[in-house]
Amino acid sequence: MEQKREGALDRMQRLSKLYEEELLERVVPFWEHYSIDRASGGYLSCLDRDGTVYDTDKFTWMQARELWMFSRLARRFHRELPEDAARWLALAEHGRQFLQAHGRTAEGDWYFALDREGRPLVAAYNLFSDYFACAAFAEYAAAAEDRDALTIAKESFQRIEKRRENPKGGYTKQFGETRQMASMSVPMMDSWLLYECPALVSATDRERRLTESIQTILTRHVDEKRQLVFERVSPVGERVPGMNGRLLNPGHAMEGLWFTLRYATAAGLAEYALQLSEPILWMAERGWDHEYGGFYYYLDADGFPPEKLEWHMKLWWVHAEALCAFLHGFEARGDPRFLQWFERVHDWVFSHFPDPEQGEWYGYLYRSGDPSVGLKGGKWKGFFHIPRALLEIADRLTSLSQAAPGEQSQ
Amino acid sequence: MEQKREGALDRMQRLSKLYEEELLERVVPFWEHYSIDRASGGYLSCLDRDGTVYDTDKFTWMQARELWMFSRLARRFHRELPEDAARWLALAEHGRQFLQAHGRTAEGDWYFALDREGRPLVAAYNLFSDYFACAAFAEYAAAAEDRDALTIAKESFQRIEKRRENPKGGYTKQFGETRQMASMSVPMMDSWLLYECPALVSATDRERRLTESIQTILTRHVDEKRQLVFERVSPVGERVPGMNGRLLNPGHAMEGLWFTLRYATAAGLAEYALQLSEPILWMAERGWDHEYGGFYYYLDADGFPPEKLEWHMKLWWVHAEALCAFLHGFEARGDPRFLQWFERVHDWVFSHFPDPEQGEWYGYLYRSGDPSVGLKGGKWKGFFHIPRALLEIADRLTSLSQAAPGEQSQ
Repeated sequence: MEQKREGALDRMQRLSKLYEEELLERVVPFWEHYSIDRASGGYLSCLDRDGTVYDTDKFTWMQARELWMFSRLARRFHRELPEDAARWLALAEHGRQFLQAHGRTAEGDWYFALDREGRPLVAAYNLFSDYFACAAFAEYAAAAEDRDALTIAKESFQRIEKRRENPKGGYTKQFGETRQMASMSVPMMDSWLLYECPALVSATDRERRLTESIQTILTRHVDEKRQLVFERVSPVGERVPGMNGRLLNPGHAMEGLWFTLRYATAAGLAEYALQLSEPILWMAERGWDHEYGGFYYYLDADGFPPEKLEWHMKLWWVHAEALCAFLHGFEARGDPRFLQWFERVHDWVFSHFPDPEQGEWYGYLYRSGDPSVGLKGGKWKGFFHIPRALLEIADRLTSLSQAAPGEQSQ
Repeated sequence: MEQKREGALDRMQRLSKLYEEELLERVVPFWEHYSIDRASGGYLSCLDRDGTVYDTDKFTWMQARELWMFSRLARRFHRELPEDAARWLALAEHGRQFLQAHGRTAEGDWYFALDREGRPLVAAYNLFSDYFACAAFAEYAAAAEDRDALTIAKESFQRIEKRRENPKGGYTKQFGETRQMASMSVPMMDSWLLYECPALVSATDRERRLTESIQTILTRHVDEKRQLVFERVSPVGERVPGMNGRLLNPGHAMEGLWFTLRYATAAGLAEYALQLSEPILWMAERGWDHEYGGFYYYLDADGFPPEKLEWHMKLWWVHAEALCAFLHGFEARGDPRFLQWFERVHDWVFSHFPDPEQGEWYGYLYRSGDPSVGLKGGKWKGFFHIPRALLEIADRLTSLSQAAPGEQSQ
């Protein structure tokens, strides 16, 4: 047993190094090299397999996420890799300037898209633009010790607070009187934002809000009886009728679960940690394609045709978030099923997503696992899920290999 | 040569019969049997492979298209199949009642979606709901000789006229000051509506408008130099920058071309007919998947990654419209390339789309040609493209087999 445990710890250390190398040698350099728009400011996110720019529009999700990621890298590595960290901070500053100059409406809401020069292209209809911008400015503020950036983050947070109950405002097409739907995205994003950006609210407020996100996910979205996590529910947690209500989004479920589980573990909320970790396994089992491997993008809870045409495709972020979820599950409970899932998905991911020739990962695979397009970045894929997950996984594996939580249970 | 021509005419007659049988024996019965909502009125469009209802929401596109189709069948077959035609008219009347009772806002615009009982679910943001409803009531008016239905069609047409310049109204998210985009959908739908529903406007007005649709497609969307049809262009026909502007939608292109070509041929506009038919061949060649067969859903004009995840899938309507386009191209010019394409696509379609066990056609195939889901109907697939195309093709083949246009050219 001693022998076996030591082997597992060695493997965690070796894998931690592999994930860090993947991050620093094959993913970050791709974005440093190809995505910085020296001509017009900000970042170029539409990058084909070899970094060729195939569109120059600037999507706020992508701009803000890249700003967040460079800021986070700068902060995380400022001691270990001071030269790299300084360069990443400068690249963050490059993105901050563009977003700050062009990104907001007069009311302080974030446009969804700008053109290359920063002219508004698509209105501020999407509240998640604001979530990502808020997190990005808060992270930049922490990395650069920049008070103006924190002010912008706080202003954005106030706008999110104001808009949360009716996020799309006048762009809402759904009739709430006929049918109300609440999405997993909101508690998921709340829990991410408040965990990552403690400077936004008081410590008490943060604790209260993070606990509320946990409760919202557990009482509304997690269905103990069916052992499923529902993406869309009524505001009081009832099943929404029809295909909207039956939608399963395994990647989103696992992502939202690890965001909240992380806080539950950190805050010592053991009962919540148990309740949040088990559904990760349900959704992994339900989401896995037993024929080709990989997680489906969408499924229908009753096995009917999913509403989305692309339900069968294998997406980068789903797999990156699943890997994080398994390690947080293992950290919380020491249950070996989480490590078994981690190993299974790790093998599939590393034999399908990374591009060994040009670096970075493919984003969109056919159900079979072959890339459907070569792109490394686009309207929805940027410098975010992969580097964030690689960093998270490397750090979790290091921590696990030192703490050996497997001893605590089973 | 005489031998060969006779063989070709025989084949056209035989194929015409095959398409009519497919329509009357395997497609129409499926919808008659499963889609009529006797409990709440209107039609159920979310039908799984065996007709199982997997959602009861009522999407105006689907309701209106089914009303149009039953009305058209009633009108087309009232002499040949009087009993069937009477039944179809009653099924049309069943759908008309539901739409008329629940479908419109106080302003007379058509909601996008209703729940099963007819309560509004999704606002009237989509002008094509109005196009389909307008055509449906006009067709029902013609089939049932119902003046009230024609009044509703005309009212809807007035609303379309009013909203056409700003179709999404307050739901518009795009900043026109930064970038203007005009879609192929509008002239395409105009040409369909006005060709099908002559009662909506005066004969002179109809002629003028149909000619304008032809001109819009030719001057804005058809690119002679690149031999491509662009889905989105600037209002004056310039290329829109980036991936939005490079989007190719082979199915839409071929559909819009046959709608306009049909009028050009009927009106004796020979020069236009030549200009509209050639691009059908460009888009067929460009859109064809030379590895697995079938037409791609979307492509990028410069070979970059298409914006849409599902670009590689093979959709029922794309293939149904392509078959119509080839016959209209052949009818206009007698060029054998159109018949060669027709035969090629016919073979692929009949070996992939129809469900030999349960009737109707699969809607969504993987790139390989295997069904990705079993559904026969859904939010976007109803009783429309397939029966409309089967009827159009059967009638065109009969007409071609009698007129033998191959003699006129080549």
